[in-house]
Amino acid sequence: MNENKPNPLKLSFKTENAEVSNFLSVEKPGAQISGVEKWLLRKLIKQIGDPPLRIVMWDGSELFRTAPNPQTGIIIRDRAALRRLLSKPSLNFCEQYCSGDVDVEGELLNFLETFHLCRPIATESGPLKLGFLERWNRRSGNTLNGSRENIHHHYDIGNDFYRLWLDEEMQYTCAYFPNPAMSLEAAQAAKVDHVCRKLQLKPDETVVEAGCGWGGTALHMAKHYGVKVKAFNISHEQVEFARDRARREGLDERVEFIEDDYRTISGQFDAFVSIGMLEHVGIDHYRDLGGVINRALKPNGRGLIHSIGQNQAEPLNPWIEKHIFPGAYPPTLREMLEVLEPWSFSVLDVENLRLHYARTIEDWLARFNHHKEEIEQMFDRQFVRAWRLYLASSIASFNTGALQLFQVLFSRPHNNDLPWSRAHMYIPEMH
Amino acid sequence: MNENKPNPLKLSFKTENAEVSNFLSVEKPGAQISGVEKWLLRKLIKQIGDPPLRIVMWDGSELFRTAPNPQTGIIIRDRAALRRLLSKPSLNFCEQYCSGDVDVEGELLNFLETFHLCRPIATESGPLKLGFLERWNRRSGNTLNGSRENIHHHYDIGNDFYRLWLDEEMQYTCAYFPNPAMSLEAAQAAKVDHVCRKLQLKPDETVVEAGCGWGGTALHMAKHYGVKVKAFNISHEQVEFARDRARREGLDERVEFIEDDYRTISGQFDAFVSIGMLEHVGIDHYRDLGGVINRALKPNGRGLIHSIGQNQAEPLNPWIEKHIFPGAYPPTLREMLEVLEPWSFSVLDVENLRLHYARTIEDWLARFNHHKEEIEQMFDRQFVRAWRLYLASSIASFNTGALQLFQVLFSRPHNNDLPWSRAHMYIPEMH
Repeated sequence: MNENKPNPLKLSFKTENAEVSNFLSVEKPGAQISGVEKWLLRKLIKQIGDPPLRIVMWDGSELFRTAPNPQTGIIIRDRAALRRLLSKPSLNFCEQYCSGDVDVEGELLNFLETFHLCRPIATESGPLKLGFLERWNRRSGNTLNGSRENIHHHYDIGNDFYRLWLDEEMQYTCAYFPNPAMSLEAAQAAKVDHVCRKLQLKPDETVVEAGCGWGGTALHMAKHYGVKVKAFNISHEQVEFARDRARREGLDERVEFIEDDYRTISGQFDAFVSIGMLEHVGIDHYRDLGGVINRALKPNGRGLIHSIGQNQAEPLNPWIEKHIFPGAYPPTLREMLEVLEPWSFSVLDVENLRLHYARTIEDWLARFNHHKEEIEQMFDRQFVRAWRLYLASSIASFNTGALQLFQVLFSRPHNNDLPWSRAHMYIPEMH
Repeated sequence: MNENKPNPLKLSFKTENAEVSNFLSVEKPGAQISGVEKWLLRKLIKQIGDPPLRIVMWDGSELFRTAPNPQTGIIIRDRAALRRLLSKPSLNFCEQYCSGDVDVEGELLNFLETFHLCRPIATESGPLKLGFLERWNRRSGNTLNGSRENIHHHYDIGNDFYRLWLDEEMQYTCAYFPNPAMSLEAAQAAKVDHVCRKLQLKPDETVVEAGCGWGGTALHMAKHYGVKVKAFNISHEQVEFARDRARREGLDERVEFIEDDYRTISGQFDAFVSIGMLEHVGIDHYRDLGGVINRALKPNGRGLIHSIGQNQAEPLNPWIEKHIFPGAYPPTLREMLEVLEPWSFSVLDVENLRLHYARTIEDWLARFNHHKEEIEQMFDRQFVRAWRLYLASSIASFNTGALQLFQVLFSRPHNNDLPWSRAHMYIPEMH
């Protein structure tokens, strides 16, 4: 890694991995691959669902293929890389892809989707396994200070960097493409409109937003729905940017950006909204988040939580968790309901927008690639490879159903001021 | 109870309750209410949330009132009734209401809604309490034989009885009123259309239905969407009725009614649908139901489960569980997901139709009341009071948010043949 460049991802490759298995440690390193290493690699690929691919070694020779005509493959640049791959596959594959010690044949996205589509589905999970994973997932460390550190790590890399590949409004969450040919800008506006229609916002109502990013949602709500918004965020760079935008657009009377944790929300509001924050909350804090919402909502208030999710409780990919989103976890819908059930909220509506997130990130990745040189200048080559891996693997995860995107709309149990159908979300004159 | 009449609800009132508290048992029964009894009754009403009501004794005198001008009250006909009420309030209030030993001042529905709106919300439930309730709820006894007995108890009372107050198609589940002024008949048809649009049924696709009632949904799907349906039900009377209708309407080539348990479903289908059966499955069988769906769905298959639910895990009212729906339990949405999560199904859409169920049962109750004399002839007066209590308490539960109605749409994780928005459910030309 270039030492003069910032290191926002805490990338630390080539470090000696102390957990290489004992079995491997008795083998003497050398230029030639051993029969044991080949056997272990074949076994590892079987375990991950036997995707159709070929393995190419540092001298260009093919070690083996798992299917007659694979569209993709893994290139291993040296024997040390192979040994690291065998010892901690998920983490080290990604780290070595970033450093260039491991590479992919063909399109990275195609490789990742092939991998995801073959992953075995844990139908034998059972309550025991779920229980263990839930305990595992609960260790997020998202205390007030922990959250601040985790969020700073990702969101304070620099507004200039995000400006290069996000939409004009800097929305860093899933857009909504009712028509998949829409531009990213139109789809981000459509997302906020979709949320506002679900919440049935009326002029002069009050909204509290937990985790407001660069302020795009709060400002759009105030501008187009005439509501007053209090928006919370612990990312200093984002709040500064959002306040500046509010002043420039003359919305600073209607939108207040507060640089503080969602747990400090006070007052009562007509609507609660949180877009893309739950992933950073940690399951052990879900009940408290529900308590915050319970304090914050008026009797006929409505709430919406928009979050990445998954079908089965599994830990985040260890590389993403270590380098991209420390402390993050995408819950199952069942786990998300741990926010709402203890407080007796009624779930009114759940929508899954996973293909919309794949479509959103495809646009981000195209813009990112367009600015590749500029970004390499800002950081370095490893950063570019890491960020492309993160974006491409996110696309693959949403396209193959490894990740979901849930919007959950809810209200208090006694609120009967509810529309008789959801047609108003789709037929504007009914709104 | 009139001994010459059938006893479909196993109504058994006036039996000695062995669990009257020790405290009460030292009191000598007599015509006058004691200070202790009054204190216990006041305490009981406080515990259930202190609804505004007055207590009227057998001699017409008011024992006390909990608010200045209560709209409703309880009339206690004798001292034995009071003592039974104190010993097992939920069960015995209902039993004694049916026998006439306890009555209600004003409208029954108003009384029940007042009661529900005051119920304390268990915000302090926590995982421990949820855990206990979940264990409690798991003891449903819905084995193959147990289910058959439980279903026979309610659904085989007689088609002639249900014909008096259900719609023409005999749909005994929540209708869908996109316009609340619709007739029940139109709303039941709209419900099936709504389900078919969610499932995106196409002509000649195959559907399997678990728990098909009198066949209304299966026949509507075949008639209006050109699909082939295999429909399962363990209620003999319902299946006979449905087969007869299929023959009369010339749909017996397209719809096959099978008198068997959902666990015997075999073959693969484009869609799985279950409307109003999950309430009878029992949480301990949710995972198995998911396994049945997993076997039954083609790779791009869609599934929909429509079920009564609740916001927090609480046992069914003991009177309903004993006399109306043995073995039944309305799950929370979180619990419903125990059907889908172990098999990695993707939840695509959840809609809550609780106000639609209140509206549906209001129509049923009006029709029931219209045929009151006829029903009293078929059974007896206690049956009429019991059935009205069940219908009115169901309306109150849905109107006050004590019960919910969830429609959960799902598919396999890799199915990307999904619409980009839900507009097709609301704009017919988009279908």
